[in-house]
Parts: sequence; C-alpha cells; structure tokens
Amino acid sequence: MKFKYYNDGDLRRQLTGDGFTVIYRVRGTEKEALEVAKNMCVEQTVEFPAAHIECPAIQDGILGDIDYTEDLGDGWQRVDIVYAAQTAGEDFPQLLNVIFGNSSILPDITVERVCLSESMKKTFPGPKFGVQGLRERLGVYGRPFTFTALKPMGLPPEALAEEAYRCALGGIDLIKDDHGLMDQPFAPFRERVEQAAAAVRRANEETGGHTAYIPNVSGSFRHMDERLQLAADCGCGGVMVAPGLVGFDLIGYAAEKTGLPVVCHPAFLGGNLDRGQGGIACPCLFGQLPRLAGADITVFPNFGGRFSLSEAQCAGIRNMASEDQGAIRAILPSPAGGMTFEKVGPMREFYGNDTALLMGGGLFTAPGTLTENCQRFLHELQ
Amino acid sequence: MKFKYYNDGDLRRQLTGDGFTVIYRVRGTEKEALEVAKNMCVEQTVEFPAAHIECPAIQDGILGDIDYTEDLGDGWQRVDIVYAAQTAGEDFPQLLNVIFGNSSILPDITVERVCLSESMKKTFPGPKFGVQGLRERLGVYGRPFTFTALKPMGLPPEALAEEAYRCALGGIDLIKDDHGLMDQPFAPFRERVEQAAAAVRRANEETGGHTAYIPNVSGSFRHMDERLQLAADCGCGGVMVAPGLVGFDLIGYAAEKTGLPVVCHPAFLGGNLDRGQGGIACPCLFGQLPRLAGADITVFPNFGGRFSLSEAQCAGIRNMASEDQGAIRAILPSPAGGMTFEKVGPMREFYGNDTALLMGGGLFTAPGTLTENCQRFLHELQ
Repeated sequence: MKFKYYNDGDLRRQLTGDGFTVIYRVRGTEKEALEVAKNMCVEQTVEFPAAHIECPAIQDGILGDIDYTEDLGDGWQRVDIVYAAQTAGEDFPQLLNVIFGNSSILPDITVERVCLSESMKKTFPGPKFGVQGLRERLGVYGRPFTFTALKPMGLPPEALAEEAYRCALGGIDLIKDDHGLMDQPFAPFRERVEQAAAAVRRANEETGGHTAYIPNVSGSFRHMDERLQLAADCGCGGVMVAPGLVGFDLIGYAAEKTGLPVVCHPAFLGGNLDRGQGGIACPCLFGQLPRLAGADITVFPNFGGRFSLSEAQCAGIRNMASEDQGAIRAILPSPAGGMTFEKVGPMREFYGNDTALLMGGGLFTAPGTLTENCQRFLHELQ
Repeated sequence: MKFKYYNDGDLRRQLTGDGFTVIYRVRGTEKEALEVAKNMCVEQTVEFPAAHIECPAIQDGILGDIDYTEDLGDGWQRVDIVYAAQTAGEDFPQLLNVIFGNSSILPDITVERVCLSESMKKTFPGPKFGVQGLRERLGVYGRPFTFTALKPMGLPPEALAEEAYRCALGGIDLIKDDHGLMDQPFAPFRERVEQAAAAVRRANEETGGHTAYIPNVSGSFRHMDERLQLAADCGCGGVMVAPGLVGFDLIGYAAEKTGLPVVCHPAFLGGNLDRGQGGIACPCLFGQLPRLAGADITVFPNFGGRFSLSEAQCAGIRNMASEDQGAIRAILPSPAGGMTFEKVGPMREFYGNDTALLMGGGLFTAPGTLTENCQRFLHELQ
C-alpha cells in the first residue's frame, strides 16, 4: 500500500549509514541458512512481506543485510547480518529486540556475537567502572578479587549483617546478597541492606579496608527506585541485578541511578543458553550481553562445579568479558558455584588476575571461622 | 556455623505453611531425577550445603520439599516441589527466581506448571481485566477479537497514525504497535503514540466504535514512567510489554501505573522455550507466566505459520490462558505470525471465541483497502 505521509528523503536523512552486526549460527546447508537469514533480515526489522513495502528507503536502509556467510561444518553456517543503528534507537531493550526478538522463537538459530560501531558505543557505553575502575575503588592490585555471598535464606538481617561483618573483618573484597535474598518477611530489604551496609562500614573502619557490600535489587519495579536509592544512601559498594528476572536494561538503569558498580547474576537466564538447538551462545549470554548492558562484574557457573558449562564455554565468557572492545571497558568474569579453597589456584591460573573468584558455601563450611577463611582466601591469592 | 542472632521461633512464626508447587520434568531414571530434585530443593532456596545449616526452621520450612514424582516414560520424570510462600515474598521476580532461578542454567529440567495457593493469588492477582473485562471495555461479545499491528518500521508517525485511523474505521478491535516500534528517530515514541491515539479516537468518534490502540512500551526503564503516563494520558486502550526484553514484572507494573489492559509479546522470550533439553514448557512460557504476571492478552506464534510451535503446544497455551485458576482471570490467547483470511475460520474453531486473532501483514497485503480488509476480518467472525 501507498502511504500518504511517507517521505523517502526524510527517512534517508535519518539513516546515517551507522550500524551494528550480529553474528549468528544457523543450522542447515548454505542454501537453507541463506533462506533463513533472508527471513531474519525482515523478521528482526519490518516484520512485513518485503515485496509489499513500496518505500525504497525502508527496503534499502531498514531491512537487515546479509554481510557474510561461512560453512562451519557439522551442518551449521555462520551468517552475519548488519542492521541500521536507527532500528535500535537509544533503548537497550530495543537493541536486544533487533538482535534476537522474534528469531529467539525460531529453532536452530544462535546469537554468537554482537559488534557495535564506535558511534553506537557512545549510545550504549557499557560499564561505568570495569576492571580498572573496580581496582581503584577497592584498592585491589595484582591479584583477583575475593567475593562471597550472604546466606542462607531464612536468616534475619542481624545474622546476615553479622556474616558480612565477619567477612569484611577478614578482608574480603566483595560481599553480595545471595541471589535468593530479596524482600522476604524474615529479612526485609530495608533492614537487611541497612544493617549489612553498616556492619561492613564498621569493619572497614576497624581494618582500614575497602570491602564492598552489594545488595540484590532484582525485585519488583514497584519498589525499584526506592531500593536503589537506599543502596546508595547506605553506602553500598554496588548493586546486583539478575537480567533474566528484570531485564538487561535494568543493569544500566541501576548503574545510573546509584552511581555504583553493578554485578550481573545469571538467575533465570539459563533457559536462553544455546544447548545445540538455538538460543544465545554461552560467551555472549554471560559475557558480552552483561558487559554491553553496563555490568562491571558478571557472575556465571564455573566448569567442573554443579552446573554444566564446559571449560571452553567458560573460556569464552572470560574472553568476552575482557577482550578489547574499544570504548567499552573490560569487566570482571566471576566464576561461581561449588568453589572451594582447592580450586583457588587453578582458577586463578585459568581466569587470570582480572577476575572475581566467588566462594559461597565453601567459605562458610571450611574449618576455621568465617573471618579466618576470608583471610585464607586472600592469602592464597597473594 | 552458629548464628548469634538467629531465632528458630521467630522464623517458624513467619512461615505460615502457605506455599506454592512447581511441576518440573527432569530427565533421567527415577533415582537420578530424585537426586536432581533434592538438589533443586536446596539450589532454589538456600543455595547452601543443607547438612551445614544448623537452623532447624530453615531446614524444615525454607528448603523446598519434593511432593510427588511420576515416571513419564521416554526417560523423563515428573517432579513436584513445594516451596514456602515466604521464599518469594511479594516480588514477582523473586517468585520466578524460586521457580527457576539457578535451575534454569542446568540442563534437562523443564518448568511445566506453577500452582499458587489461594492466598498467594491475593499477592499475585494476575490480570486486572481478563477476557470478561476486555469484552466489557470494547463491547465485543460472542466472537473472537480482531487484532492488528502498525507496520512497517521506518514509517513516520503520520503514516502509522493513518494506518491506525483506517483500521479503526474498519472496526478492528485492537491495534498494537509492531513490536519493533520503540523510540526510533523516524517514529519517536511520543509523536507516534500521540498521533496514533488521536487518529483512533477520531475514528471511534466517527463510527461509535471502541477500537483500542496499544503502544509498545518495552523500552528503557529510564523513560518507562513517562511513557506509561503518556499512554494513559493519550487515552490508549492498553500497553504492550515484551517480558523477554524488560522482565515479567513490568507487565503488572504497567497495568498498575496506567490502569489499562496489558498485551504480552513474546520477543526475546523464545530462547527460554523447552526444545527437549530443558527450559520452560511452551504452555507455561507463553500461557501461564504472562497470565500470572498480569497480562490480559498473550501474543504467541501460531502453529503452521513461519514459527515452529506445534498444534499441541498452541493448544497448551490456549488451555493455560483460559483454564479455571480461581481468582486469577482467564486471558485472551492471541495466535499470530503469518495469519491470512483463509485461516480465520479454522483458527476460530481451534481457539474458540475467547481469543484475539492477530493479523498483521495479511491484512495489509490482501486485495482491498485497509479499511475494507478490517471490515472483512470482522465480517468473517460474525
């Protein structure tokens, strides 16, 4: 159909030629994958039969373009599609929507990597602190960060604050809420955050340390602004966001509202993981997307623990977190899940110094007091 | 470890015995699945070695309980786990977190269904309107709702508003933004919503109809409140939320802030779909979770179109949207994707009258004007 108010010249002026590329893997022969990719160029943008669009600038500038294909073997093809920057605008959720909105529902398509132009990195600038900023904030140099979690769910704020105090006395760098702590009657958000933050501050004053307490803010939007404000007011050292529960955009929002570092947690995100039938490739899901969204630290399940990621997948996450991305700062990968003292050395070897080693249960159940165990954790890294 | 401030009696008083059950499918023999389920009871709650929790009330009341198991054949077991209502508290994201937070990362676990107690349905009351409320708002009785989308991306607000006007003149019930329309330079949110809402209002005044215009609000949280307010101020007939992009909780938040019906869109949600290796079962993902979160209409890809859902999966979504759930209102399933006039009759037969048939491209590309095609769409259902 013809549109009375459509002006080809106006749209061409708005489309600056700036864009981003998404690298997909598609199952099939080269011919089949090309057919799928052609449909994706439409599905991810205009979602309208391309032959019926009587607007040349939309045909030329809004539809995705297939930029590169490669046979990867094993019945999979690489397909790169370039999209105009303007299809995403300045909303991070809409960027994700162009990357994998409707195509997420199709089988046998995997998002491997997103490549933003330099000018798009100004719109989506990534983390505010990154590895270097965190080192400066916490005074941690030449070693990985030590990281633990307050647990278990069911304890009152006083007991969780006591844990935080003991860990901070032991010199741990980062303490987060367990991701299951939100605003339960036995440990309401306000009381927990006020008391844990005060306990860590007291310990820092005693030791001269810089332990950061990082509450979980992955709750209802109804209370989001007040909780973020409380975290900032209490002098928390960061906030934790689970994008699977509250959306990737909340990472950047929380960073902006609090001015604090943000920890990304993988809860409820795992369903998106490519397990061979399409989805988001592990390094992209747990490494690149959190970084693009503005997280300073990304928590993910380490290989060899109770989760199922492979060593190669974890190496991929590490690389996506730390590789040179121009203006977008490198972030700390934070392998977690079943970590014990025995693994500290090998994990440092594998992940390098730019990592936050997250030991939860292992720190609480090892012989010795919690404070001694935190000291030992730190000692193993010096 | 012992906790100085822990009081078993306090926690027991807070745990009222109220709870919810999640029905999972787990791959393995009965013995293997039981082992997985035992770990899930811990993983989804305390995330702490159960043997080391020296707090009886946490052991008794916070950890999940395996309630039922059944061999489903083909190497899969059904496992029902009961969780205390207090583990979720009153935050919808935390309810999702207990249902499938960390377990989403494990392979071969599928969420089939969530069963809330009657008292939890007061905390999570579902949609405000539901099928009956929408019928009363729009004056639609004895037939399915007709539904279309403004497209394609790249048109200016004036052209999209013109489309909306033509569709409303033709008596269509529901008009949503295409899910790719957010806040792009060629059609900024404010201008688009103001103009489309005004165009639909003008058509309604001319025809005496009740067409609802439903803008997409699945953008950045930075602008969420102002966009929701604008939608309400412009007299929109609802708002559309893609929980894959902005989280399921935003559905209830948008409903509360605007007082309007909410349409759930599946963009970026498909990665979570169980494709035989774990995830969220299709009827739960596209039917039950949107309903629990408070959506009045849930859009999903119809079988036989360009997406891959089966007839059985779509029947499952329909059933989850409409089955008796006590205080939680039934909602409209809205099958979409490649719908044409030829499918109107068979789809009505399959989905029944309590459905919103979403025809996008098919309505725009059929012979006849847009207004005529909307009239024909309606006519086919009378």
